[in-house]
Amino acid sequence: MKAIVKKFPGKGFVLDEVEIPKIEEPNEVKVKVLNASICGTDLHIWKWDEWSQERIKTPQIDGHEFVGEVVEVGPMVKGLKPGDIVASETHIPCGVCKQCKTGKMHVCKNMKILGVDRDGVFAEYVVVPEIVLWKLDPSIPKEYASVMEPLGNAIHTVTSVDLRGKTVLITGAGPIGAIAVQVAKISGAATVIVSEVSEYRINMAKEMGADYIINPLEKNLVEEVMKLTNNDGADVLLEMSGNPTALNDGIEALTNAGEAAILGVFPTNPVPFAMNTAVFKNITIHCITGRKMFETWQIASEWLRTKRIDLSKLITHILPMEEFEKGFELMNSKKSGKIVLKISE
Amino acid sequence: MKAIVKKFPGKGFVLDEVEIPKIEEPNEVKVKVLNASICGTDLHIWKWDEWSQERIKTPQIDGHEFVGEVVEVGPMVKGLKPGDIVASETHIPCGVCKQCKTGKMHVCKNMKILGVDRDGVFAEYVVVPEIVLWKLDPSIPKEYASVMEPLGNAIHTVTSVDLRGKTVLITGAGPIGAIAVQVAKISGAATVIVSEVSEYRINMAKEMGADYIINPLEKNLVEEVMKLTNNDGADVLLEMSGNPTALNDGIEALTNAGEAAILGVFPTNPVPFAMNTAVFKNITIHCITGRKMFETWQIASEWLRTKRIDLSKLITHILPMEEFEKGFELMNSKKSGKIVLKISE
Amino acid sequence: MKAIVKKFPGKGFVLDEVEIPKIEEPNEVKVKVLNASICGTDLHIWKWDEWSQERIKTPQIDGHEFVGEVVEVGPMVKGLKPGDIVASETHIPCGVCKQCKTGKMHVCKNMKILGVDRDGVFAEYVVVPEIVLWKLDPSIPKEYASVMEPLGNAIHTVTSVDLRGKTVLITGAGPIGAIAVQVAKISGAATVIVSEVSEYRINMAKEMGADYIINPLEKNLVEEVMKLTNNDGADVLLEMSGNPTALNDGIEALTNAGEAAILGVFPTNPVPFAMNTAVFKNITIHCITGRKMFETWQIASEWLRTKRIDLSKLITHILPMEEFEKGFELMNSKKSGKIVLKISE
Amino acid sequence: MKAIVKKFPGKGFVLDEVEIPKIEEPNEVKVKVLNASICGTDLHIWKWDEWSQERIKTPQIDGHEFVGEVVEVGPMVKGLKPGDIVASETHIPCGVCKQCKTGKMHVCKNMKILGVDRDGVFAEYVVVPEIVLWKLDPSIPKEYASVMEPLGNAIHTVTSVDLRGKTVLITGAGPIGAIAVQVAKISGAATVIVSEVSEYRINMAKEMGADYIINPLEKNLVEEVMKLTNNDGADVLLEMSGNPTALNDGIEALTNAGEAAILGVFPTNPVPFAMNTAVFKNITIHCITGRKMFETWQIASEWLRTKRIDLSKLITHILPMEEFEKGFELMNSKKSGKIVLKISE
Repeated sequence: MKAIVKKFPGKGFVLDEVEIPKIEEPNEVKVKVLNASICGTDLHIWKWDEWSQERIKTPQIDGHEFVGEVVEVGPMVKGLKPGDIVASETHIPCGVCKQCKTGKMHVCKNMKILGVDRDGVFAEYVVVPEIVLWKLDPSIPKEYASVMEPLGNAIHTVTSVDLRGKTVLITGAGPIGAIAVQVAKISGAATVIVSEVSEYRINMAKEMGADYIINPLEKNLVEEVMKLTNNDGADVLLEMSGNPTALNDGIEALTNAGEAAILGVFPTNPVPFAMNTAVFKNITIHCITGRKMFETWQIASEWLRTKRIDLSKLITHILPMEEFEKGFELMNSKKSGKIVLKISE
Repeated sequence: MKAIVKKFPGKGFVLDEVEIPKIEEPNEVKVKVLNASICGTDLHIWKWDEWSQERIKTPQIDGHEFVGEVVEVGPMVKGLKPGDIVASETHIPCGVCKQCKTGKMHVCKNMKILGVDRDGVFAEYVVVPEIVLWKLDPSIPKEYASVMEPLGNAIHTVTSVDLRGKTVLITGAGPIGAIAVQVAKISGAATVIVSEVSEYRINMAKEMGADYIINPLEKNLVEEVMKLTNNDGADVLLEMSGNPTALNDGIEALTNAGEAAILGVFPTNPVPFAMNTAVFKNITIHCITGRKMFETWQIASEWLRTKRIDLSKLITHILPMEEFEKGFELMNSKKSGKIVLKISE
Repeated sequence: MKAIVKKFPGKGFVLDEVEIPKIEEPNEVKVKVLNASICGTDLHIWKWDEWSQERIKTPQIDGHEFVGEVVEVGPMVKGLKPGDIVASETHIPCGVCKQCKTGKMHVCKNMKILGVDRDGVFAEYVVVPEIVLWKLDPSIPKEYASVMEPLGNAIHTVTSVDLRGKTVLITGAGPIGAIAVQVAKISGAATVIVSEVSEYRINMAKEMGADYIINPLEKNLVEEVMKLTNNDGADVLLEMSGNPTALNDGIEALTNAGEAAILGVFPTNPVPFAMNTAVFKNITIHCITGRKMFETWQIASEWLRTKRIDLSKLITHILPMEEFEKGFELMNSKKSGKIVLKISE
Repeated sequence: MKAIVKKFPGKGFVLDEVEIPKIEEPNEVKVKVLNASICGTDLHIWKWDEWSQERIKTPQIDGHEFVGEVVEVGPMVKGLKPGDIVASETHIPCGVCKQCKTGKMHVCKNMKILGVDRDGVFAEYVVVPEIVLWKLDPSIPKEYASVMEPLGNAIHTVTSVDLRGKTVLITGAGPIGAIAVQVAKISGAATVIVSEVSEYRINMAKEMGADYIINPLEKNLVEEVMKLTNNDGADVLLEMSGNPTALNDGIEALTNAGEAAILGVFPTNPVPFAMNTAVFKNITIHCITGRKMFETWQIASEWLRTKRIDLSKLITHILPMEEFEKGFELMNSKKSGKIVLKISE
């Protein structure tokens, strides 16, 4: 089968011909991949940055966001059958650690990540355990469904806070930050303010329904938020940029007893953080990773099924698998929303 | 001044000339009433039912939902000044009981209710303690603002549950149930199903955006909900009818580990209730009264200010004060949304 | 092997010789039962009451609370090996329904119950899927471990509410109500009041550390609670009796904005319930069944491991398997705590 | 009256004779101070550090933790009368800002702090608004009651997390960290691990009931916590030290999806913080200041009334007012728990 493979250490991928994977455990499912989308993590691996060099073993098929059709199921698979359309979690849990046993398998201690710790989904077929698959409602368009995974990041972040009647500041309007504008509005936010520097992304945030957009290179973010909030500050910060200044300005712009949800990953660890400000303001901070399995998926699914979420503005490019290189260049330019690769019909 | 007064025991009110009330405590505020709306409680008092006969002492000015303009403030009033436009809580808390000291003054042990335990607001002027007043954002239309109190009931009920991605069943679409449709949608509900028998109210629920409406006199409510939910049941019940059958069918129609929020008041106490069903399903039940002071008002205010809530469809009649009798007849016919009396310009 | 079997419809069980069950699915585990304890449900089946006649198919091995030693594991079992000591959930979830997929498998839509819907654990061996087994910390005495399941009911009920600094009223001090006294204390309750009529159980509640015990046949429960709480009422009701009067008096005895957690199952469904009282008081009601899988078990395990819970006073009788009849007679007399049957060494 | 006054800029205080304050507003209460305790903030002011030089205006009476007897009440005071024994909040809220109107007056936007923004309580009499006073249950010893304020910090921090069955790591066992050991145990923690470097404080933590104490100067904190937790990590971090290393090691020592509550104030703002670690672990962080008014006080009061909390080990010194200098020297040596000054009989 065709697959986009990191064949050797170094930048880029190759479109290669590899063996079709087989079901080896009774709880596994073989899926024909229909569409797959490119994530920031894929870009890191494409670039072969420091993190990738340490984590990724070659040769390995890349990719983790996908929608596909079940073609074969192991004898212990109970909830799926050939022909079912599925999206998938990226986090493969062990099932027996403390987190897995107590409703938190999205942060399983022994987690394996698709396309990072094992072969991924930029291929015509993939075999995964049933536990990670989410059966799609037929009313959800297949074009959008690979994006349920990053949409899930936005939903997991936003749903960590009750937004009803709140003023929400979103720092960073990359694809996940942009769709978070919609998710915040659907969640009952009264006002959504976005902080973003890129013109492309400012436009994307506008399209998503942001009420106010502040470019922190042009104006003082904290002062602008204070002006918009009767000097009270925002009720909620959703940090989606991974930018330390955005993080700290975001905390500074919060009202006393406000809440922050942080999905951004920062260039250094530790990062300078205004903890005293957070303490004196009595801020609650939700640090977010992954998606709740499968509470987050259930919400995504229902909002997609009932057309409350509109992903059409988020997916800016759909490319044939063969043009993956173009997709990665686009991602790298930061002038795109989500980019979908068509793998099979 | 003019006032709508229960002058003697018995049905009805009279439009009377009474003395203008005076500020007597340093924390009191004198308000010129602009608009006031009629509540179900007012209808009970108008009818002079059993409950009213026991609770109401004559003569007493009726009414508790209002919007007005501050005309005078006592020396201890800190947050208001003449000219401010205010809406008001109905529940006057004592300020020193256990509930008042721990953030629950909406269920103060020594609560006095406007128009029930003391003179109300169907009058040209009213004097109330500052603690119950909510200063209006200028962008909120005065026509709507008296309705913030019953809107607050809907918001208090709906916000007791996280509705994101949920299927919500609302039993009863009187004025509060009807606006709860909007509040549920704004709160992120995926699907709102309404159960209602009156044609007038069915239409009101439709206008508010209900996805499905079931008339339980025509169809089996539980079966219909199961059909709409892949046999899972609704995630959330919002009981707004005070009808015991609706209550129990609503519980029966819930999914396992679902939630119910109950604002309805039932004709008998106790009422037959399917507690074993609720226990075996692991249901959480939020019994609701009043509005959180003032978390609920803050949400209402922000949704009104940002035009996320549209009250125009809820207020079906605006009448001059003199035509109050017509207003009560309308309320009694159940063929109205909220009815507003214009008291002063 | 020996097993306690409901061989034919009608009262009682027989100690029978049956075939040892075999592992048939790759995710199953074969366990040698060491100890098993008798539950109220077993007593219903022993008596062959109306519910049992409808639900139970003969012949069937009874029992669901047990501790045992793993003797064989299927090829897909990942977290257990022969020699491990395990306790077990009674609720066997399907793994694929909406509840199972979203962290609520304890109320799985397709749940099977051990000893009710399939052969139980009053036998020398039992085969169950790995998903229901909880590996015991070696420091937890095997004598106690079969009781982790009903202890889990108490913990699930009590942990639905934050009890820190609260006054807690427990109605009913059967075995689960009695251990709930301890669980409430460990959870930070300031004061635990128990309502109970049986002298045996009053003594058990005292031993467990109840601060006040009220016999509602001798004194007015609501009045006594009000006396003990400065006329505020209890903060929390834990309903463990299944008695409608206890339920309603318990609600009446609550403070405004109090909380109730209800584990009791009532003799009729519906039951008369003071819903208006609950509504006007703004009560939150948690209806409880089963144990969270496995958050509840994790708590139970940690409290047992660190000796914070003392089960020695709860287990009042340990009998050889052969004397099961004596055990059931004792349970029926209501003059016992938990009764443990020794099945194997 | 006698008062401990910062008379001029510079180190130290003087015991001075000043005028007795008078009630000036109708909602004020005049209190005879019985006991007052020394807080870290007082030590900052005594030392006249940079923060004090910017914030404190001389002359000013110092102190904010106290217990006293009401001697006079203004005409609007509703809940107190002469002879009542009271403790007091340090945070004087404005009553009209967004926070005050929505149940968060402990982080009032316009907050004034006793002994910092106005005259404090190290004096024979103090006049404060009724809103900050907490009437003491007669069973709570007056010796302890001034310490309810810092105890409240510990309770506010600990109660931000459900500790039942959890392994809790407390970094820093100064007076508040030390009493937090007790508060964590009362809250249902299974295991409390303390990290502390001072021998005096290590002993204090032991007396309070810590299960394990780790001196991070002698052993690797993260490794030791992993050893004690089966390599899972602690469930909860309570940061009480204000030490950046403790903060980051504490986050590193947490289990995935664990929670942190942070009361410590750090020497720099920003401080280096392992945010990526927190993000990848899905940690929730509660930044804490003050005490909820008065939910926290209600819990403190009930635990003191029912003798569940034992403050006897926390208060290590009781000195006459005149020996305040000795008290401050002791505080400065870090070889004390709480130090109480006896002001009046």
